[in-house]
Amino acid sequence: MTDTTSFLNELTSLLGERGLLREPGDMARYVSDWAGVTLGMPLAVARPANTTEVAEVVRRCYAQGIAMTPQGGHSGLVAGALPAASGQELVISLERLNNVRAIDPINFTITVDAGCILENVKLAATEHDCDFPLSLGAQGSCQIGGNIATNAGGLNVLRYGMMRELVLGLEVVLPDGRVLDSLNALHKDNRGYDLQQLFLGSEGTLGIVTGAVLKLSPRPTQNRTALLGLPSVQAVIDLYSLARRDCCDLLTAFELIPRRCIELAIEATPELRDPLESAYPWYVLMEVAATGPVDLGAMLEQLLETGMARDLVLDGALASSATQSAQLWQFRESMLEGQRRRGEHLRTDISIPISAIPDFVTRASEVVMNASPECEIIAYGHVGDGNLHFNILPPTALPDVDKKAHLYALEEQLFDVLDEFHGSISAEHGIGRTKQAAYLARLSPIERELLSGVKSLFDPKGLMNPGRILPNPST
Amino acid sequence: MTDTTSFLNELTSLLGERGLLREPGDMARYVSDWAGVTLGMPLAVARPANTTEVAEVVRRCYAQGIAMTPQGGHSGLVAGALPAASGQELVISLERLNNVRAIDPINFTITVDAGCILENVKLAATEHDCDFPLSLGAQGSCQIGGNIATNAGGLNVLRYGMMRELVLGLEVVLPDGRVLDSLNALHKDNRGYDLQQLFLGSEGTLGIVTGAVLKLSPRPTQNRTALLGLPSVQAVIDLYSLARRDCCDLLTAFELIPRRCIELAIEATPELRDPLESAYPWYVLMEVAATGPVDLGAMLEQLLETGMARDLVLDGALASSATQSAQLWQFRESMLEGQRRRGEHLRTDISIPISAIPDFVTRASEVVMNASPECEIIAYGHVGDGNLHFNILPPTALPDVDKKAHLYALEEQLFDVLDEFHGSISAEHGIGRTKQAAYLARLSPIERELLSGVKSLFDPKGLMNPGRILPNPST
Repeated sequence: MTDTTSFLNELTSLLGERGLLREPGDMARYVSDWAGVTLGMPLAVARPANTTEVAEVVRRCYAQGIAMTPQGGHSGLVAGALPAASGQELVISLERLNNVRAIDPINFTITVDAGCILENVKLAATEHDCDFPLSLGAQGSCQIGGNIATNAGGLNVLRYGMMRELVLGLEVVLPDGRVLDSLNALHKDNRGYDLQQLFLGSEGTLGIVTGAVLKLSPRPTQNRTALLGLPSVQAVIDLYSLARRDCCDLLTAFELIPRRCIELAIEATPELRDPLESAYPWYVLMEVAATGPVDLGAMLEQLLETGMARDLVLDGALASSATQSAQLWQFRESMLEGQRRRGEHLRTDISIPISAIPDFVTRASEVVMNASPECEIIAYGHVGDGNLHFNILPPTALPDVDKKAHLYALEEQLFDVLDEFHGSISAEHGIGRTKQAAYLARLSPIERELLSGVKSLFDPKGLMNPGRILPNPST
Repeated sequence: MTDTTSFLNELTSLLGERGLLREPGDMARYVSDWAGVTLGMPLAVARPANTTEVAEVVRRCYAQGIAMTPQGGHSGLVAGALPAASGQELVISLERLNNVRAIDPINFTITVDAGCILENVKLAATEHDCDFPLSLGAQGSCQIGGNIATNAGGLNVLRYGMMRELVLGLEVVLPDGRVLDSLNALHKDNRGYDLQQLFLGSEGTLGIVTGAVLKLSPRPTQNRTALLGLPSVQAVIDLYSLARRDCCDLLTAFELIPRRCIELAIEATPELRDPLESAYPWYVLMEVAATGPVDLGAMLEQLLETGMARDLVLDGALASSATQSAQLWQFRESMLEGQRRRGEHLRTDISIPISAIPDFVTRASEVVMNASPECEIIAYGHVGDGNLHFNILPPTALPDVDKKAHLYALEEQLFDVLDEFHGSISAEHGIGRTKQAAYLARLSPIERELLSGVKSLFDPKGLMNPGRILPNPST
């Protein structure tokens, strides 16, 4: 019996048959993500049932020098939670840690296992007349631990912040198997360096989050949605400025959508009809929500009126029911499906100052269209966060085999433009493996030194999700 | 000429006569803080005029092994920014770095030198129809760098968050004099570990913040203030729950005030009259603010009506003008002055879950009154943050010389109660020197190891604000 076999047998004894998967058929579900990326098979898939089991698995891996891949709901977009092609990494899936541990609606907090699916946490909050405001396309499958590890964003960041602003306390299994317990339900705590901030966005490279205390909000009792047609990106930005004021911080979403995305949505969902009487170059999908007695309808109508008087808004549809609101949001969802159907395309996730969005879109579009006149640009995003998904569909005539290289070259040019605007190559998705080269190329030596130092401090053997964010020093 | 003299002469050459103070008379202003604490004289006081000069001073100190005390506006409450009694520390005052570098009202950001006084940053924002929402008693003197180093809180945290949530980018001089430049004006940025989070709350022990990009909000165009009388702390918490919903996230402040504080306010400012017709055991001072057309008056009246119907609110005064609103806030300010006039007293700054406030106040009051029946308890605070200033005035009969020890013993008992409620000994003020013993006693070995590791990573020689938060390993 090899060392590895005996190690895995011991894990089976620890976790039970359900707790350790070793057959390729059983493991298939753990090797690819939402974007369809697959790198290879893991050594095995551990499915511990609680924090103690996670800690024990990690302790043994650390003692034996086995690399670990912590894994949530497979909705990552940078291949950060997939086992390496080497076949030497143990996947540690958090999926069985899926209990809501406690909810305190007076303190506006919920304490959950890291493997809880985001949608379930939202539902649990709702049952107590509260709201967990993080909202993402993947909320039906993504897990809280993954949301923490990637500092998830989504549609409502402009009002409620990223995951970082929604986490009060964490329970983390460190790479050597010790448990760092800071599951505090405190809204304010200024005791020294805030270590838990490091885990937010660490993509599982510093430890495995097993539990969290999250901040809740009161549950909105009403919301209103509008889809507006606008003449230019500058008008979108000007309208945003107006809306931040006139909507009194009740704005929950303000999405930029180009005409091409409305068309892609209609392609993907033929029962959708063009939302406004004419076609406009740019659209804004916006929503306001409130927990108390405010006339949101009047608020939106007033904004629309002012926007029209200033030639920012050309036309608009205001939803007057939940059904109509869902219909407007359908465009936002179907456009992603329409994009997906085009097959291979460049997906970016960049951020720039909000005020720079119009110039950036102009400049980046010029550069991309010069380099590849037959590609299609689809630039949509979260205006209030300065976060654009400046995506590119390759020329349809291009042979499939060449598309990836073509898009990669365009991405490099796009990122060069981004550098001129002091932007970020990753507003939401993280670095993982996919963005690592572009990330490292932009790090200063000081940053690189400090980041590597943080990694070494938490994970001196380099066994926890190695090679993600920073390259593995041993390879 | 000693080494030290020649070192200081070189600093004078670098910074000019204005830039280095060496005479005790000139240095007096830099050795005590708002709380009146003085430990000793520094080696000298460096007053660099820009980031380059800060970096050069730090580089030379690092090379020579000279300990440094970065200093802001002297409004700290834990003796974190005061030079040690040893006389061997160089104070580095940021007061000459006081320029607003840029303001971008479309991006809702302002870029400032760390030595800018908070009030001036707020005024600069106002000029662009924006608001920098951090609000503290010390805002007329405290500096942005200190606000960052202590992760400052204050009155509006419940709506706008602590300083951590208001900082987008930082420029930091590291302990060896290198400059870490992450002055990004990005609302979202998920590139790897977020190093700058470590500086928030690090109390100057990891480096000197010299510049920051701060997040602005639209400037409120209206606000309403109410002072309410309530029967119990439980009623205060129940009203908070109601207000979070009925005030639609427009709540900017919700302050708990005990009857004793109203009396202290009237003692300190005799022109103040009892704010309500009768006296009530507890008061709430609350404020709502909005940037657009919402009827805040109706909102508060409705809340008051519901609160009265549920026997939570017994009486209330609603300000109907800015003058009346200022009069209500006058109680909050004067009560601090009234407290200060009592001389030596115990000032705490603790946090607990909001839902635990009533039980905590009961239990802590019992323990303190049992131990010292003649002391007076003054428990006020920010309800929405679970942050209480559970302060104690010592028995007036006690000789002054015994008060400190008496209060220290009471603090220990109070903190023991706090531990039962999983609270924090420092919600806002930080650790500095004053809270260090209580802090260290509550750290787990894992936390201690990781925190020391972070300190060593950034400051291997232990020269930057040594002995604050963590003890100096070399002493």
